[in-house]
Amino acid sequence: MAIRNLSEKLVALCAKRGIIFPSAEIYGGVAGFYDYGPVGVTLKNRIREFWRSEFIIKRENIHEIETPIILPRIVWDASGHLEGFTDVLVECKKCHLQFRADHLIQDTLHLVTDGKSFEELTEILAKNEIKCPNCKGELASTQKFNLMFKTHVGAAKKSENEAFLRPETAQAMFLDFRRIQQSMRASLPFGIAQIGRSYRNEISPRNFLFRLREFEHLEIEFFVHPEKKNDVPEELWKKVQDLEVLVLSIPLQENEESPITLKVTELIDQAIFSCKWLLYWTLFSYDWLLRVGLDPKKLRIRQHMLKERAHYAADCWDIEFQYSFGWKELQGIADRTDYDLKKHSQLSKKDLNIHLTEENVKVVPHVIEPSFGLERIIQALLESTYTEETERTLFRFNSYIAPFQIAVFPLMSNRNELLEKAQEISTRLKEHNFLILYDAKSSIGRRYRRVDEIGVPFAVTIDFQTLEDNTVTIRNRDSMEQERYNIGELPEIFQRRLQFV
Amino acid sequence: MAIRNLSEKLVALCAKRGIIFPSAEIYGGVAGFYDYGPVGVTLKNRIREFWRSEFIIKRENIHEIETPIILPRIVWDASGHLEGFTDVLVECKKCHLQFRADHLIQDTLHLVTDGKSFEELTEILAKNEIKCPNCKGELASTQKFNLMFKTHVGAAKKSENEAFLRPETAQAMFLDFRRIQQSMRASLPFGIAQIGRSYRNEISPRNFLFRLREFEHLEIEFFVHPEKKNDVPEELWKKVQDLEVLVLSIPLQENEESPITLKVTELIDQAIFSCKWLLYWTLFSYDWLLRVGLDPKKLRIRQHMLKERAHYAADCWDIEFQYSFGWKELQGIADRTDYDLKKHSQLSKKDLNIHLTEENVKVVPHVIEPSFGLERIIQALLESTYTEETERTLFRFNSYIAPFQIAVFPLMSNRNELLEKAQEISTRLKEHNFLILYDAKSSIGRRYRRVDEIGVPFAVTIDFQTLEDNTVTIRNRDSMEQERYNIGELPEIFQRRLQFV
Repeated sequence: MAIRNLSEKLVALCAKRGIIFPSAEIYGGVAGFYDYGPVGVTLKNRIREFWRSEFIIKRENIHEIETPIILPRIVWDASGHLEGFTDVLVECKKCHLQFRADHLIQDTLHLVTDGKSFEELTEILAKNEIKCPNCKGELASTQKFNLMFKTHVGAAKKSENEAFLRPETAQAMFLDFRRIQQSMRASLPFGIAQIGRSYRNEISPRNFLFRLREFEHLEIEFFVHPEKKNDVPEELWKKVQDLEVLVLSIPLQENEESPITLKVTELIDQAIFSCKWLLYWTLFSYDWLLRVGLDPKKLRIRQHMLKERAHYAADCWDIEFQYSFGWKELQGIADRTDYDLKKHSQLSKKDLNIHLTEENVKVVPHVIEPSFGLERIIQALLESTYTEETERTLFRFNSYIAPFQIAVFPLMSNRNELLEKAQEISTRLKEHNFLILYDAKSSIGRRYRRVDEIGVPFAVTIDFQTLEDNTVTIRNRDSMEQERYNIGELPEIFQRRLQFV
Repeated sequence: MAIRNLSEKLVALCAKRGIIFPSAEIYGGVAGFYDYGPVGVTLKNRIREFWRSEFIIKRENIHEIETPIILPRIVWDASGHLEGFTDVLVECKKCHLQFRADHLIQDTLHLVTDGKSFEELTEILAKNEIKCPNCKGELASTQKFNLMFKTHVGAAKKSENEAFLRPETAQAMFLDFRRIQQSMRASLPFGIAQIGRSYRNEISPRNFLFRLREFEHLEIEFFVHPEKKNDVPEELWKKVQDLEVLVLSIPLQENEESPITLKVTELIDQAIFSCKWLLYWTLFSYDWLLRVGLDPKKLRIRQHMLKERAHYAADCWDIEFQYSFGWKELQGIADRTDYDLKKHSQLSKKDLNIHLTEENVKVVPHVIEPSFGLERIIQALLESTYTEETERTLFRFNSYIAPFQIAVFPLMSNRNELLEKAQEISTRLKEHNFLILYDAKSSIGRRYRRVDEIGVPFAVTIDFQTLEDNTVTIRNRDSMEQERYNIGELPEIFQRRLQFV
């Protein structure tokens, strides 16, 4: 299947089945905003819950918070986002279309622009006399465009009332550092996590779910003692010790070499990460993405080049996925040092440090930040699991991630005794909070195809034998094989098959 | 306990224990925005999951969607929010403080202002020569203030780029009506649900979580055949048939009479609701709020007076809670008729109707809307369950709603064998996704008090006997009694005790 094709097929299938489709589409939609239908919502919920389970609930010392999306101007002053969170914008003088300068250069000159400055991008545009790709008109001069959505809190349009929609959930973890550390009696190392939406007023949203204006972040700020950034407890390595990872370090990129596969022991020995906590979180995240169901052949980790790094980072790695449009960042893991806590401490004049009772000293912790974009995971998962067979199209989701877990079908739709029995079984399974899709319409074969198409792993069919002996068939999506079970066994069977692993 | 006191005590306790506290508080906070710490997040998550379970997962024909918070100007034109979603604002000419006209009248003249028009409020202010309560300055003339937060999508500040943060999640359900109905093959009656944040730029946020600028909605738009608004299936009444509800109908309010207690059969017979589907959803919501754990003595339902009703409503009821600051709306259930579908159909020129194959006609469904504000539920729950005893303060949350479900304590913090065993038990319970609070610091008595204070229903204590016979104590929050169980039994015991009921 042609790579470019995949993305288009996914977009069409997602719209047709009401999985994911443009927001406000009856009014023509707005670029960079998508709606999730029932299948999409549940897929999103499942991934989110799996993340919460593995990164928060089952762990020691990760504390979840939930904070507003709107934050006042002063927060973004302190964080550096007002000054630095910009893209370079260029507008056509004739047709007034607007472009991101780096994208325009990539698309017309096929140059890599990562990490290029405002001045460098401006110079490339001028030197190559690039015109508007829409109308061939002349381009106006470049300008810095802040990517945050601005609004006002309160009735007065004064600058102290300016507020911005957060471009990352991270800042709230720094603002709440002291309150959480004290109220949870936390000692280093510990983390604060947040799940929630972020906003970036992208100049050119593109590639379906990849570059959105409204999306969901899953983020952890993990606070460590600045002198103990390598002290990862032995038991945490156990879970990740058997991984082998495709690695693209700074030296490999500088020498334009291909990524190499390394074992965890080699990664530890080579010390290409700024510290072992950064390595640990990268590996744990990588392993979690595998468990979500991403294709292992399409995953690698890439170190940020020096000039790519955000202003606060001492080291940064991306977990990249080979999307249908190329290798792109799926997730970032950054060593943010003590940059944010110190900035907020300065501007707010509040102590943002931690008192170590044993040594009787105050330290400002360093921060390791694993930051996931939920929509990028969804798109990678759709691309990883989409399968075309002669007779059918399906998503091979892991059963514990699938949007609906069990389809319930009466064999025929015009026999009341089958309908009643099927409804009864559906209701009973719902009582166990399984995610059930009940469907009585059209032939059983077509119903199997329909649930394959949205990746439902199991289908329970109620037939005439059911009425005699209380057994039903469970049909497996991937093998298409059917097994017969007693109705009473169903809750336990499904509980076992649907557990997170 | 003095009523006014309760609210202040809750605010103080919530801040101290990091449950809920002002957003960006190190910068002085912003009125109407709150952060949730680990205890608050989990409480919120539990209520949200209980809602999703009862209103979506366990039901037939309710389909969940998730859509962006930012929607373009045209949507709010169609919905009437650009024109009508306003409060009356008045500013002091001298100190420039701004007030909501109706609140100012309520606070200074102690008049009821519900449903008063812009002109009426303006007249009352003038006639009574009301001055600024802050500086006694003269007030400027009243103005209409739109409560939506405005922003721009894209770089250009053109009016077609204007967008607004949704003040309700409902509009997206109308926009997606056709897509969901078709892709889910839904027939009437069916519902579309959404859980998500909404935004209202309140002139005067107040009463802790009650009137916020950013809050969470749990909403259903339930689409019914316009001529079958009374056809509620028999089995749905079963769940609610035994309720008795304190009712304040329009006639009772007109005659300034007290609310009366009515049985469900009486409510059906008296037909004071515009239709039975509206009554059913009101009763089911009321029952659900009881199951969350709200004090039944503090709940009643009140019918909107004609002039109070929103522009789209044919009938509307509030479930009111007796907060520490008075009886106020906790939840609204409205009969929105076909107003929204018709408006969006007109403006978008898209068919928003449903084709009834059997009768071969197209109908525009009517809509019954149960709409919950999650923060108002949280505040009602905190007020309902807060208890002061001689020795301790506690929240008597239902066990299946409590933020942390099980506390795990080693009896003494300086004995390694106890610590190790306690860690092992904590880890094993976490594997079952129980919400665990592990604490080894300070005396066991103080630890019990601390978890009482955040409403943890069970505490497992590991003592020296545990090391001998693998048994632990389970201490019950409410009775303070302890029972001894074998470690192996814990998962099953807690699964049973923590199930939603």
